[in-house]
Formats: sequence, C-alpha cells, structure tokens
Amino acid sequence: MQNAACIFCRIIKGEIPSMKIFESDKTLAFLDIGPLSKGHSLVIPKHHGAKLHDIPDDQLHEVLSVAKKIAIAQGLENYNILQNNGRIAHQVVDHVHFHVIPKPNEQEGLGIIWPTKEADKGELQRLLEEIRSKM
Amino acid sequence: MQNAACIFCRIIKGEIPSMKIFESDKTLAFLDIGPLSKGHSLVIPKHHGAKLHDIPDDQLHEVLSVAKKIAIAQGLENYNILQNNGRIAHQVVDHVHFHVIPKPNEQEGLGIIWPTKEADKGELQRLLEEIRSKM
Ligand SMILES: [Zn+2]
Ligand SMILES: [Zn+2]
Repeated sequence: MQNAACIFCRIIKGEIPSMKIFESDKTLAFLDIGPLSKGHSLVIPKHHGAKLHDIPDDQLHEVLSVAKKIAIAQGLENYNILQNNGRIAHQVVDHVHFHVIPKPNEQEGLGIIWPTKEADKGELQRLLEEIRSKM
Repeated sequence: MQNAACIFCRIIKGEIPSMKIFESDKTLAFLDIGPLSKGHSLVIPKHHGAKLHDIPDDQLHEVLSVAKKIAIAQGLENYNILQNNGRIAHQVVDHVHFHVIPKPNEQEGLGIIWPTKEADKGELQRLLEEIRSKM
C-alpha cells in the first residue's frame, strides 16, 4: 500500500534515490541526508501510513531488528531511537519512520528536554483503569 | 533472563508494584510514574538487557504492536516513541524501555532539539559503504 505523493513511498519505488542500508520485502533503511550526527539513519515500514497506529502489526515486527542491526554495524554504544507522530511532536514526513540517532557527545545527536510533571497517584490510578478498559 | 539488581526486572517479577497496562510472556507495559504528559507509558521486553542491541530479535517483535495498542487505547494523535541508549543519550534505567509519550501541546510531553548538520555527500557515501559492509 503506497501513496504516490509521499516522498518515502517514492524512495521505496526507486523514483527518488536514497542511500540504502537495508532492504527487505517489508522494511527499508537509509541514511538521513540531514543528519543530527554521523550515521543518523531511518528505518521505515514499506506499508504507507502517516502514524504508528496506522501501520498493521505484521508490517512492524522487523523494524526494531533492523534498527538494532544498524546500531551494531556502527558499533554504537550511545544512541536514541525516535519515532514522531504529528507536527507538534516534530514529525515532518507523513510516512512512519524510526530515527536511529548516534549520540557521540553532548553537542551532536538528539537534544532532549524532559519536563517531568508531578503525578497524582489517584489520578494515575483512574487513568490506568481507563486505558486498560480500552486495550 | 533477568537481573536481580534491575528495578524493571523486579517489576516484572512482581517484587515492586507497577501500574500495569499490558502483559504477555515477552512484554510488559506500565504507566510512567514520573510522566512528561498524561498517559506517558513504558513498554519493555521482559528479557533483561541494558541497550537495544543487547536484546534478541525474537524478544523485540511485539514491542511496537504494544506501543501502538497504547496509543490507540488513549486515542492519541500526537505522540513520540523514544528509546534511549546510554547515559549521554538520556537513559536512566539500564533495562531497555520504550517511552510512549503523548504530546498534547507545546509545553507538555517530550521536548526535542534538532541540531541538523550540513552533510557532505562524499562523506555520506563513504559512511554508507562502511555501514553496508557490516550489515
Ligand atoms: Zn509513504
Ligand atoms: Zn532488567
């Protein structure tokens, strides 16, 4: 299932060149050409979908194994795996993609801001029950 | 394979309570008690390993399906999936965990800094060949 207007679907079809690292029937991985650090790569399911919840389970099973392979091939010890859903969450291309971002030092790679909130235990418990009822 | 000193292994064994959302033979998901936003959850393989590349492939296949389930159960449209490897990359607990972090607005949820570098095409090409030779 592909989308003719999607840049990643066009890369999958070979209409746009990419720096391919890995390819199988369900998964493609290539270097990010606007890297946050040396070796920044993308792993995508070939099935088109904007967000994680749009991709069928059987199209996702290989993604983390491929991300792992890329980390091992580069001998990475410090790195982030990131997948963004929605503009406000920093998604730019509307085809699910997993970033493998080496973190060689403080300056390069992904920068993270972690604004932890004080959580009310009773509120968490109610939320838990709500989520569980929908799983 | 578990580690007696690991807080997440102790949660898996039931020695430490957690707000469980989902459990199967290979995977556990629970609410983060220091959330970045309402619904911030963790999905972990039960197999102990500090970093993604330490976890066998067959212990990883279900992780993204469970993350997806959690997003759908909450009706999320904007969210980040994040897995950190190494202290410098913001990892705090040394048992692989995937954050599902709702992004309801600019203030709450994950904050991302994206310091893109100018990439030299020739350098990228050499790096690509190096990585491919090791895949
Ligand atoms: Zn696409
Ligand atoms: Zn553990």
